[in-house]
Parts: sequence; structure tokens; C-alpha cells
Amino acid sequence: MGSNDNNNQGDNVLGRDFTQNVIDAMGPNTPPRLREVMASLIKHVHDFAREVKLTTDEWMAGVQLINQAGQMSNDRRNEGQLLCDVIGLESLVDDITFSAATKSTSGLTASAILGPFWRRDTPHRAPGTNISSRTPPDAQVVYMHGTVTDVQTGEPLPDATVDIWQASTNGKSFPIFYILYSTLHEEHNLRGIFHTDAHGKYSLYCLKPTPYPVPTDGPAGKLLKMMDRHVYRPAHIHLMVQAKGHKPLTTQIFDKDCKYLADDSVFAVKDELSVSFAPREGDAQAALELEYNVTLAQA
Amino acid sequence: MGSNDNNNQGDNVLGRDFTQNVIDAMGPNTPPRLREVMASLIKHVHDFAREVKLTTDEWMAGVQLINQAGQMSNDRRNEGQLLCDVIGLESLVDDITFSAATKSTSGLTASAILGPFWRRDTPHRAPGTNISSRTPPDAQVVYMHGTVTDVQTGEPLPDATVDIWQASTNGKSFPIFYILYSTLHEEHNLRGIFHTDAHGKYSLYCLKPTPYPVPTDGPAGKLLKMMDRHVYRPAHIHLMVQAKGHKPLTTQIFDKDCKYLADDSVFAVKDELSVSFAPREGDAQAALELEYNVTLAQA
Repeated sequence: MGSNDNNNQGDNVLGRDFTQNVIDAMGPNTPPRLREVMASLIKHVHDFAREVKLTTDEWMAGVQLINQAGQMSNDRRNEGQLLCDVIGLESLVDDITFSAATKSTSGLTASAILGPFWRRDTPHRAPGTNISSRTPPDAQVVYMHGTVTDVQTGEPLPDATVDIWQASTNGKSFPIFYILYSTLHEEHNLRGIFHTDAHGKYSLYCLKPTPYPVPTDGPAGKLLKMMDRHVYRPAHIHLMVQAKGHKPLTTQIFDKDCKYLADDSVFAVKDELSVSFAPREGDAQAALELEYNVTLAQA
Repeated sequence: MGSNDNNNQGDNVLGRDFTQNVIDAMGPNTPPRLREVMASLIKHVHDFAREVKLTTDEWMAGVQLINQAGQMSNDRRNEGQLLCDVIGLESLVDDITFSAATKSTSGLTASAILGPFWRRDTPHRAPGTNISSRTPPDAQVVYMHGTVTDVQTGEPLPDATVDIWQASTNGKSFPIFYILYSTLHEEHNLRGIFHTDAHGKYSLYCLKPTPYPVPTDGPAGKLLKMMDRHVYRPAHIHLMVQAKGHKPLTTQIFDKDCKYLADDSVFAVKDELSVSFAPREGDAQAALELEYNVTLAQA
């Protein structure tokens, strides 16, 4: 007859030995960087669970939140990314990767997070094109232009690409922000890739950006609500700038007079990325103007 | 004309102030326990990112892994849970919730993780039923029985429920482990809920458990492979035992002679949960026997 041994001393799951065992389970063929990342992740996740005495019910609520994020994600929406954004992780990782690496370079344009709305298939557009194909009645059109230069030499960079994307003004009135949520807007509305000319200059028409909420129909919105936080992002325009022989730049520029600059729901604002829009005279297309110059570091 | 201010001093995203800002963004109506959990989670996640200097590419690889886990999950499969399991988190949380709370109770049956395969709709079965409706040729049948008692008084507990589930022997030959992955087995094969009699006794026939791999077709399997770890679980039987007025117990019992006891892919093994199977005489249904007695703490 078999039997059970209820009274033996068990492993000390709550002790540090348990965590070290999990880390040490990684085999000899684990790539060194993956070993470093996973060891730190396991240590911090276990420390978190011990610190707050995480219960199985709380942990399972977290698992379900994460599973829901995956279920809502597709090639046009990344809810897992948004979950990271609302706890500041994308901003932190962006700074680790880009800003910290180049912080000694004076005058270099600061980076900011990519966010979940960049698209790989954005069309190239001629200089001076208006990226807003259906300008809403409450929008203000901006003539945006600038020069892309090498931060070390100050030389302009011809044929650099300036990939621009932004939200429409309708964030508040219905839950459709970028084209990916919209059946009302034409494909690629408010997106475009522009090339700098021989003098490093680019130009386009776009909308003066307005604050809008991040999507609230998924786990990130649910988490923000539970944390008693608002869901808005300050008014911003996304840019991704690339030139041959230079490090690519991903950033966002913010209207310095808008709301939510101090409490961006995804923590992407940096002081040096705030801009002011000026009145523009004699242009039937736009009442506002923004000069935004970009500097890139050599690769 | 507007302008940008590239040379201002930015916020120190990499510093602790950034993390504290993210934590302090929680509003006054955040439930206190959620505030405690989220503050600790944000701190540890940020510390992890800083400690390993996590890059945007690495972070995005993690986001995609998590999104894929959600996309594979449904009401019969929980890949997010499995991801947690392979880094020991479910075992740790189980110990925090159940074992630590009752560790001063001598003789109490130890808990172990629920795992992703428990089902809410498992049928109740008569005493002595064989839960294996299609016993594979390579299986050994076990007569399993025992008594459920109150750990404090030693009194048997009538009408306690013993919910049992186990894998078949085919884990190695094809990637179908539990009924949820199988179209070959009838619904609820290898599952059943048994009730104890007036003397607290339960009995059933089941299979001698055999080691099997966790599912390898999703992110958890991918992560295990990257970490150069095997994917096997030691041979085990799952139990969930409940009796009126007592704390429910979820546990697993392990064949003390099987492989992978020391390196369970989900870190669920505890010494006191190992059992040995004995030869059984005079029973045409089973060549092996296991007595497994369970003690429950009062609620």
C-alpha cells in the first residue's frame, strides 16, 4: 500500500533559494544577454510578489488582463504596448535606448516613444502636401517645416525621411483616434513620409494637434480607470526622422500651451520637445505655422 | 513663426523621480490594495528595465510574446498563466496565499499550483469509478483511495469533494495532454469529482501518472527553448479538496520515483507531496494502489 508523507519539511518556496533555483534552471546554451535579462526579470517579479504578498486571485486577475490585451491586439493595434505605456515603461526603455546613449551630444533632438500607432506602410508624399485629407471643421491647419541637420557638423541632410503621424481632432467626440480605428477616414489620413530637399528642408501641412484619450475599450483603459487616472494625452505630433549614415530618431513634439503636459497618460512628455505655433500670414491653406528643426547624430 | 527648444534640460526619465511620478499619478480614488500592488509593480518593472538597460527592441519582443500568449488563450487554455508558471510565479503566489498562511498548522496537507488545466465543469462521479474512459495500452491503473480529515480534530469529513484531474500517458508521443487538447478522447476523460462517505473516505481508479511536456506551441514553450530548459513536468495527479467549514486545498501529488522531480518545468514540486505506488493484489481492475489522505484546516 502506498502512502503520503504529509509531515516532511517542504522546500522554502518563499525564500530566495526558490528564486535562485528558477534562475539557475536556465541551461548552458542560454544566450548570455537573455540570461542576464531573464535573471533580473525573475528576481524582480518574485520580489514584487513577496513584497505585496500577492494572492492567487490578484495574480490571476493580472494574467487575465494580460491575456485580454493579447486578444485585442492585431497588426494595427497593440494593447500590450499600451499597457506598458500607461505604467511608463515605454518611455523609460526609450530613454535607456536612445537618450541615455547620446546625452552627451549637445543640441541633439530628444527622442520620445514610438507609441502603438506608427504604421510601416505609410505613403511617401510630395513636399508641401497636406496630410489631412478630410480636415474636420474644428481643426486648425498648420504649415510645418524645418531643416534636418547633422548635430556634429551642422550640415543640412538632403534626402532624409521625415515620417509624420498625428491624431485628428475627434478624439473627444467618438472613440476613433487614428486611422486604425476609423472607417470614416480614408486610409493613411494624417500620415505621410516626406523627403528633405538639397538644403535639408522638409515642409507639409498638418493639423494643430489636440489632446485625445488613449483607447479605453481594453485592459489599459480598465487599468487607468482603476488607478483613478485620466486617459488623455497632451496634443502632439509624432515624427520619425532618418538619414543615411545617421542614427534614426523617433520623437513627439507637444503643444506647449495644451492641457495634460504635466500628466500625460503615457509619460512621454519632455520639456525640450514642447513647441509653440505661430500665426501665419498670406497663406489660404493655413492660419498657423510651426518651424521644427531636427538634428541627428552620426551612426 | 514657431520654434523648438532643443537645448532645454529634459526630465530625468532614468532617475527615480520618473518612477515616483508614475506611481504618484494614481488618483485619490484608487483602492488602497490596488495602489499598494501597482506601486510595487511599477517600481520593480522600472528597476528591472534600468538594471539590465532594457532596449526598445528587447522590450517589444517581450510585448509580442505576451500578446501572443493572450491570442492563444481561451476558456480551455491559459498561455499567460503558463508563462508565469515557467518562471515560478504561480508556485510562489500559491505559497504566499495558502502555505504561508497555514504553515504553523502541523500535519496539514501542503498546497501546490492549480495549473492551467483545471475545469469548472468536471462531472461528479460515483465512488470507485475509473476516471480513465479509454485506458492507453501503456498505462498502469491505480486504485486510489484515502480519508479526508480535519487537521485540528482528526475527525473524518463526510461529503467532502475530491476533484481529481490528470494527464494521459501520451504526452510524449503527440502534443495532446489533457482533454482540452484532444479530439481523440471523450470529454472529461481523466477528470472527476468524488464525494467522501460518512467515514470521510473517497476511492477511484486512475492512471499511474507519467511525465509529460507542457505545451510547446506557444510563447511559454518558446521561452523555455530560449532558456535552454526542458519542457517536462514530473508525473503527478492534481487534487482540489473542499469540505464545508474548511479552507479549500489545491495540490498535486508526485510519483517519488519519476524523472524531473528536481527540475519540474513549472517549479511546483514539494518534498512532502511525493507519494509511492504499491502493488495491489486480487483486483482485476488495478495492479497498483495509492492511499492518499488529506487534511484540511478549519475556515
